[in-house]
Amino acid sequence: MPLSDLSKRVALGIDIGGTNTKFGVVNHRGEVLEKGKIRTDEYDKVEDFINALSEKVNPLIEKYGGHKNFDGIGVGMPNGNYYKGTAENAPNLPWKGIIPFADLMNAKFDLHCIVTNDANAAALGEMLFGAARGMKNFIMITLGTGVGSGIITNGSLVYGHDGFAGELGHTIVKPGGRKHWSTGSEGSLESYASATGIAITAKKMRAEFPQSLLNLYPESEINSKTVHECALKGDPIAIEVFRYTGQKLGEALANFVMFSSPEAILLFGGVIKSGDFILKPTKLHMERNLFPIFRNKVKLVFSELDEADAAILGASALVWEK
Amino acid sequence: MPLSDLSKRVALGIDIGGTNTKFGVVNHRGEVLEKGKIRTDEYDKVEDFINALSEKVNPLIEKYGGHKNFDGIGVGMPNGNYYKGTAENAPNLPWKGIIPFADLMNAKFDLHCIVTNDANAAALGEMLFGAARGMKNFIMITLGTGVGSGIITNGSLVYGHDGFAGELGHTIVKPGGRKHWSTGSEGSLESYASATGIAITAKKMRAEFPQSLLNLYPESEINSKTVHECALKGDPIAIEVFRYTGQKLGEALANFVMFSSPEAILLFGGVIKSGDFILKPTKLHMERNLFPIFRNKVKLVFSELDEADAAILGASALVWEK
Repeated sequence: MPLSDLSKRVALGIDIGGTNTKFGVVNHRGEVLEKGKIRTDEYDKVEDFINALSEKVNPLIEKYGGHKNFDGIGVGMPNGNYYKGTAENAPNLPWKGIIPFADLMNAKFDLHCIVTNDANAAALGEMLFGAARGMKNFIMITLGTGVGSGIITNGSLVYGHDGFAGELGHTIVKPGGRKHWSTGSEGSLESYASATGIAITAKKMRAEFPQSLLNLYPESEINSKTVHECALKGDPIAIEVFRYTGQKLGEALANFVMFSSPEAILLFGGVIKSGDFILKPTKLHMERNLFPIFRNKVKLVFSELDEADAAILGASALVWEK
Repeated sequence: MPLSDLSKRVALGIDIGGTNTKFGVVNHRGEVLEKGKIRTDEYDKVEDFINALSEKVNPLIEKYGGHKNFDGIGVGMPNGNYYKGTAENAPNLPWKGIIPFADLMNAKFDLHCIVTNDANAAALGEMLFGAARGMKNFIMITLGTGVGSGIITNGSLVYGHDGFAGELGHTIVKPGGRKHWSTGSEGSLESYASATGIAITAKKMRAEFPQSLLNLYPESEINSKTVHECALKGDPIAIEVFRYTGQKLGEALANFVMFSSPEAILLFGGVIKSGDFILKPTKLHMERNLFPIFRNKVKLVFSELDEADAAILGASALVWEK
């Protein structure tokens, strides 16, 4: 293939979240040439969702030279299964049961469609275009409403036997600990280190300490952003919320390091906007819990990708990596 | 190469433990054609150890057709590093610091030598010749004096960035829990689920329950074997020792499953002689702590390999897998 043709080759990256779906046309250099979004939660039937998506996406396919220039469609979505191309019983999606998403997309777009979960897609994006360029062993932890993960070993995503590997948010970091609002498990990482978990911690702590600035906000506004605001103003309770969260996260990361011995752990998602308030205690407690041969070796870094583009880049990376 | 020649090809498998070193000549079908052993702990210098080993091994190399029939030497040893061919600061070996073991062996035997840790070697042995034949994703947990592990994903051993991946015995299963006798960490899996940990649990529990049969043994004879004897006689305290151990092990296994989603977890080592006393509570607590998409999917099984041969087979498997 002449180089001039290669330069035209693109992939469609789609990131499906519970509320919004973002999509974009991405080239081999990881440039998002064009993007758009539709609501996810407005479509009770997945077929209606795909029809609405195609109305937005088909003009883009034409604009970038039609099907012949598209190497495929990559999709990151909750509980997305790489082997089966399905999304299975995802609590955050409006479509219940086992959705044969890749098949439906193939039929609609006549382009090969690959599905994985959103955190796996983000990890691929980091490996091809972000902070993990050149790394063959790293772990991506997404700290948003929930906690997701994507694990790379020997340069490949770990999908496991059934395609569902890498659910580190559901690992138990404190047996018998905080009950998870949706799974019912006790003491999972997600119940502490997600934005949702941080809000729970903050609400508990502000109730114990009336002098905390956190008490100036109404209940509905307590979230990782407002806790960060209070921490910036020097509120010791807000700072303690992040320290406690970082301790739980760091303890969990130590266990992950002893599993796959990564070169780096990348943190991604809304929670990392809290910066050193969360990073420093996380690193401290990770190192403290490591078996000595692993200490002071693992880089703990924030994602470099623009958050708005990262999910689209990651999904498109599925196509190049297949 | 004619088939007759392939049938003659063999590898040397060596399993180095803190006390004894076992070695054997293994063919492609996983048959241990001949084996032997020397003491590890009699040699303060690694060079003396290798000299003593060569005196035993060289006659075997001659007997099986000389160097031309040997594809290499595989070594499983504590803290063995696959990438560097070293053993690094292994607490159980008489040789301190970083030992360039593969280089020393290459020089002595003029055969390519590959090193990894003992549990990784055991996992390879299971994949090629044991209960994990045909599996591409499984985890091997060795329950002996310590707790070791070998992790296979996508059909390959997970070595990680630095070659030390898979130290699951040192993951923390109960933060702030039992202090480890050697590492000082609190609440590691090894501190509960190893034979050493079981003895500690048994000594604590028998002190609380004077009626337990465990009190009929002198302190020095409390180990996983005598606890098993008491459990077989129906002693509820001995049974509780295994139940408690199985709970801790099962909780840890649940976290491992959510990491790499294996088809099976294989248990290996002296502790598994306790059979269902340990297996049933382990399975119960593993399932109970799993995120629903992983439940009732993962086989939890005992190793099929003869324990005396498994380590040698596993080490030789390094040579065929290279």
